[in-house]
Amino acid sequence: MEIKSIEHKRIKRINVSQVSEEDDNLAIEEPLEIKLEYSSQKNSTEQVVSVTMRTPGNDEELALGFLFTEGIIKHVSQVKETKVLAVENKVLVRLQENTLPILQKIERNFYTTSSCGVCGKTSIDAIKTVSAYQTKADQICLQPALLYGLASALENHQSLFKKTGGLHASALFDIEGNFLFLQEDVGRHNALDKVIGAAFLQQALPLDKNILMLSGRASFELIQKAMMAGIKIVAAVGAPSSLAVQLAEDSDITLIGFLRNKGFNIYSGEKRILI
Amino acid sequence: MEIKSIEHKRIKRINVSQVSEEDDNLAIEEPLEIKLEYSSQKNSTEQVVSVTMRTPGNDEELALGFLFTEGIIKHVSQVKETKVLAVENKVLVRLQENTLPILQKIERNFYTTSSCGVCGKTSIDAIKTVSAYQTKADQICLQPALLYGLASALENHQSLFKKTGGLHASALFDIEGNFLFLQEDVGRHNALDKVIGAAFLQQALPLDKNILMLSGRASFELIQKAMMAGIKIVAAVGAPSSLAVQLAEDSDITLIGFLRNKGFNIYSGEKRILI
Repeated sequence: MEIKSIEHKRIKRINVSQVSEEDDNLAIEEPLEIKLEYSSQKNSTEQVVSVTMRTPGNDEELALGFLFTEGIIKHVSQVKETKVLAVENKVLVRLQENTLPILQKIERNFYTTSSCGVCGKTSIDAIKTVSAYQTKADQICLQPALLYGLASALENHQSLFKKTGGLHASALFDIEGNFLFLQEDVGRHNALDKVIGAAFLQQALPLDKNILMLSGRASFELIQKAMMAGIKIVAAVGAPSSLAVQLAEDSDITLIGFLRNKGFNIYSGEKRILI
Repeated sequence: MEIKSIEHKRIKRINVSQVSEEDDNLAIEEPLEIKLEYSSQKNSTEQVVSVTMRTPGNDEELALGFLFTEGIIKHVSQVKETKVLAVENKVLVRLQENTLPILQKIERNFYTTSSCGVCGKTSIDAIKTVSAYQTKADQICLQPALLYGLASALENHQSLFKKTGGLHASALFDIEGNFLFLQEDVGRHNALDKVIGAAFLQQALPLDKNILMLSGRASFELIQKAMMAGIKIVAAVGAPSSLAVQLAEDSDITLIGFLRNKGFNIYSGEKRILI
């Protein structure tokens, strides 16, 4: 089976108000489950140690690199066999008999994420059912020029980024393109959680009359968080991943990528852009 | 207490072989533990639901935004109290009596990371003891011009990035600056795990005679993975975080940031750069 790292998608590209339809390449983002099998005396144990959102390809290296850098295994001689189940997005690493992995550290430090579980499709469906809002925002139709201004407005407000060059930002605008507020963080998901958490505290949810602007790339995780908050328009300075586009389509979210001073790409929900 | 999001650090800046000492601003990266307290009838439960690497500030919004976007809580009226313990990097969210959080999704999808636990300092110490290698690489001394070339070499080999604009890369070079191999992924930690996993399979560890090049920013997590593989020289196109610099110093790693065609910043381990 051929491993695909890139997916093609037909998109609309806006450049100084010229509209063209083009083929775009999306980086594929899919979950990978890393499972460990080990045995001592008569007991055999199977344990999922990680689910990570990754680009398919080199899954064996990814699984072994993860297990090694986390201190779970020490040397390749401990590994009996690695089975890559690419279609199911799973890797099974079997250790030699009587080789025990060192799992204390990850058990102590485990943390939860919005990782979508093992199958993107199933979990996208699952997420839909738990979203608090069924907003439509079908009456919204934005001028391209309004969007052009958001990128520089974001940049102007990134005070910590200006000082460090090292922070992601999430910003909220109203539907007229007025800047409302911004949060910065080393983690892009944290910057967005801070924005949505502020709206949650102010009882301003759902954010279906707002535009969310992201300083970097749009991953599945970010679109999922936007969807939970009822956000219908997401504009990113960077590229979206394949799974971000799929979730945006399934959730009726307008997703803009590569937003610049005079142009952008529309990945989904073009009905809300006046072209 | 004043919340700090930026840390100052005295660094060496190299620009067309001119060396200057300057003050640099680092984005602060520290772990945050999000704990939930809820009660039903006579039972009271405290549960850590997330440990995330974040920039301090707006911790209440971060915690509530996380709990809401993960579908764990639905409305601000469910929250009795939020206690931010900034010094300890903890947030405790107390729910109203008889309000139960929805934890099934995160329990099903939990995954482990290299997150350093609750206290950066303690865990940096803890990590040191589990590293497989005690490499020194004190004999290495690189010409600045050798480093200049790495950024464009990385760029030339990022074939998926060229097509999508949406992937991080990690690349390995030898000590003469020759390109060895590269991995790309939507997740920067995955790209690095793939590089180290490949070396693990080839029994090429420790990588103490290599230079690791990162396409983006250098976070704590990436330096931790580099350290586990015995890498002593890490060069990033972007900015490092405060905790990345601290770990690099503690692990005797040479950390280069903002690497460009004709210049870079040295954040730690300048003894390995000929200036």
